[in-house]
Amino acid sequence: MNLSDIYKPIQKDLKKVEQILEAITDAEFSLLAQLLAYTLKTGGKRVRPALTLLSGKFYVYDPRLLVLMAAAIELLHTATLVHDDIVDNSPVRRGKPTVSRAWGQNSALLLGDYLFAKAGSLVASTGNLRAIKLFSQTLMTISAGELKQTGVTFDTAKLRDYYFAWIGAKTACLFSTSTESGAILSQAPEEAIQAIREYGHNLGMAFQIVDDVLDFVGEEDELGKPVGSDLREGTMTLPTILFAESYPKDELMKNVIGKKDAEDVSQAVEKIRDSRVIDDCLTLASEFCFKARRAVEQLPDNSARKSLIDLADYIVERRK
Amino acid sequence: MNLSDIYKPIQKDLKKVEQILEAITDAEFSLLAQLLAYTLKTGGKRVRPALTLLSGKFYVYDPRLLVLMAAAIELLHTATLVHDDIVDNSPVRRGKPTVSRAWGQNSALLLGDYLFAKAGSLVASTGNLRAIKLFSQTLMTISAGELKQTGVTFDTAKLRDYYFAWIGAKTACLFSTSTESGAILSQAPEEAIQAIREYGHNLGMAFQIVDDVLDFVGEEDELGKPVGSDLREGTMTLPTILFAESYPKDELMKNVIGKKDAEDVSQAVEKIRDSRVIDDCLTLASEFCFKARRAVEQLPDNSARKSLIDLADYIVERRK
Repeated sequence: MNLSDIYKPIQKDLKKVEQILEAITDAEFSLLAQLLAYTLKTGGKRVRPALTLLSGKFYVYDPRLLVLMAAAIELLHTATLVHDDIVDNSPVRRGKPTVSRAWGQNSALLLGDYLFAKAGSLVASTGNLRAIKLFSQTLMTISAGELKQTGVTFDTAKLRDYYFAWIGAKTACLFSTSTESGAILSQAPEEAIQAIREYGHNLGMAFQIVDDVLDFVGEEDELGKPVGSDLREGTMTLPTILFAESYPKDELMKNVIGKKDAEDVSQAVEKIRDSRVIDDCLTLASEFCFKARRAVEQLPDNSARKSLIDLADYIVERRK
Repeated sequence: MNLSDIYKPIQKDLKKVEQILEAITDAEFSLLAQLLAYTLKTGGKRVRPALTLLSGKFYVYDPRLLVLMAAAIELLHTATLVHDDIVDNSPVRRGKPTVSRAWGQNSALLLGDYLFAKAGSLVASTGNLRAIKLFSQTLMTISAGELKQTGVTFDTAKLRDYYFAWIGAKTACLFSTSTESGAILSQAPEEAIQAIREYGHNLGMAFQIVDDVLDFVGEEDELGKPVGSDLREGTMTLPTILFAESYPKDELMKNVIGKKDAEDVSQAVEKIRDSRVIDDCLTLASEFCFKARRAVEQLPDNSARKSLIDLADYIVERRK
C-alpha cells in the first residue's frame, strides 16, 4: 500500500492544493518568494491536506472550499514547523538546513508569521465561520501546548500523561482540525463531524508516536535528519519514557535523559532501539489507529472511507 | 487636550475591552497566564482599540461586535510587539524588560503565536467575514513588511520612499485596519469605510513619524527606553534619513549610520536632535494629520468625529 493509491479518490484536488501553494510562492519581493519556495516546495507527504479532502467526501463534496481549506491547513502546518525549528534550534529538516539556520532566526520568525496570516486568509475565503473559529482555536492549542512544554520539570510518574497531552496539542490537534474542517465544509451532520474528528485525533496521536519511534529506528537518509535527534536535543519522547519506566535504575539513561548532546547519547539511542520499548510504542500507536478506524466506520462506506482506513495502516507501517 | 477627554464617547466600551484583555490573562497554566498578564496589563495608551470604537460611532454602533474587534486589534498589536522585540533584540519596552529578555526568545515566540491566534479567534467571533479577511491581510502586510526590511541595503536616493513604505506596513496598516474594521462592523456605507480607512492610514503614518522623532527628543523615563535607541541599533528612521539627505558629507554620521552600537552614537543623536530635521519631520507628520482630518471630515458630525480630529492633534503634540 502506498500513498498515491490511498490518495486516489482526491488525486485531482490534491494537485489543486499544490497549485495554490505554488502560487503563494510568487510573492511581491524576492526574499519572501525564496523563503516560501524553500518551505512549500518540499515534496512532503501532504497528509493533512489529503485528510481534509478525504473527509469532505462523505456528504456534499465542494472542491472549491475544500481545496482552500486543505491549502490553509498545510500552510499552518508549515508555519508551526518553521517556528518549531527556531524553538528547538534544529539544524536540519527533510534533509535540508532549516530556514532558521539558512536565513537566520529573524527571517524564520517573520516567515512563520506570514504563513499563519496567509493560512488565515485562505480559511477566511471559505466564508465558513465554524471552520474559521476551529482554525484559530487550533493555533491557540498548538502554541499554548509548546509553551507549556518549555516550563516542564521532570516528574517520572507523570511522564506518559504529559507526553500524550503534549503530542495531543502539537500534532493530533491539527490532524483533527484537518478532518473536522473537511466534514464541516461538506455539510456533514453533527454526528459525522464528531466521528471524523475522533478519527483525526487518534490518527494524529499514532502518527506522532510513529514519528518518535522512527527517530530511533529510522535511517538518516529517509528521516532527513540524524537518528536519535530527540534524545540528543534533550527531548523525552515515548521510547525514552517507556524505557525510563521499565529500567528506572539504568545508569546510562540517567546520564543522558533531559541533557543536550550528552556524551553517551549514541549508546543510549542504541540501547533504546534494541529494547522491547520500540514494540511497546508501536503497540500503543496501533491502539490509536484501531480507535481511528472504529470512528471512521460510523461513516458511509465509500472509497474515501477505504482510503482513511488504509491511511491508518500506512501510518504505522511507514519507514519515513 | 488629554486622551481621557478624547476617549470620552467610548469610555464605557473601552473599559469592556480592558475586561476582555484581563479575562484572557486567566489562562490554563501559570507560565502562559504570567506572560499574558505581563504583556496585556501595561497601561498602554490603547490608541488602536479606541480608534475601532470611535470609528464605529457613525452608523449602527454595535458595542458587542466592536468591543470584540477592538480587543482583537490590541492583541494583534501586542503580538507584533512581542515578535518585533525578538527580531530587534530589544532589551526594554515601556520601562520593563521585554518578554524575550525576561523569559527567553522561545517563550516570546510562542506567546506571540498564541496572541495572534487569540486575536484571530476574537475576530472570528464577530462573525463578520469582511472584518476577518481584513484582519488576516493585515498580519500578512506587517510580517512581509518586516521581512522586506531585513533584506535591505542602503541606497541613499531611495531612503525616504523606503521609510514610508516600511512604516506603512509596520504601523499605518494596523491603524487603518483599526478604523476600517470599526466602520465595517457598524454597517457604514462604502464611501464612509474608505474615508475612515484613509483617516487611519494617515494617522498611523503621523504616529510612527512622531514615535521616531521622540526616540531622539523624548525623555528616557517617558519613552520607557534609552534615547536614540533606533540609531544605536543601526535602524535608520526619518530624522536620520533627513539628516543624511541634508548633510551627505557629515563624517560623524558616516561612522554611525547602519552600524550597531557605534562609538560616536551619542554625539550623533545630539547632532540630529539639535538640527532642523526634527522640525522637518514634525512638519511631515502634520501633513499626514492634515490628510487624516480632511478624510474624517467627510463623515457625519458627532462627538466621535471631534475625538478623531482631536486625536490627530494629540498624536503630533504628545511627549510619549
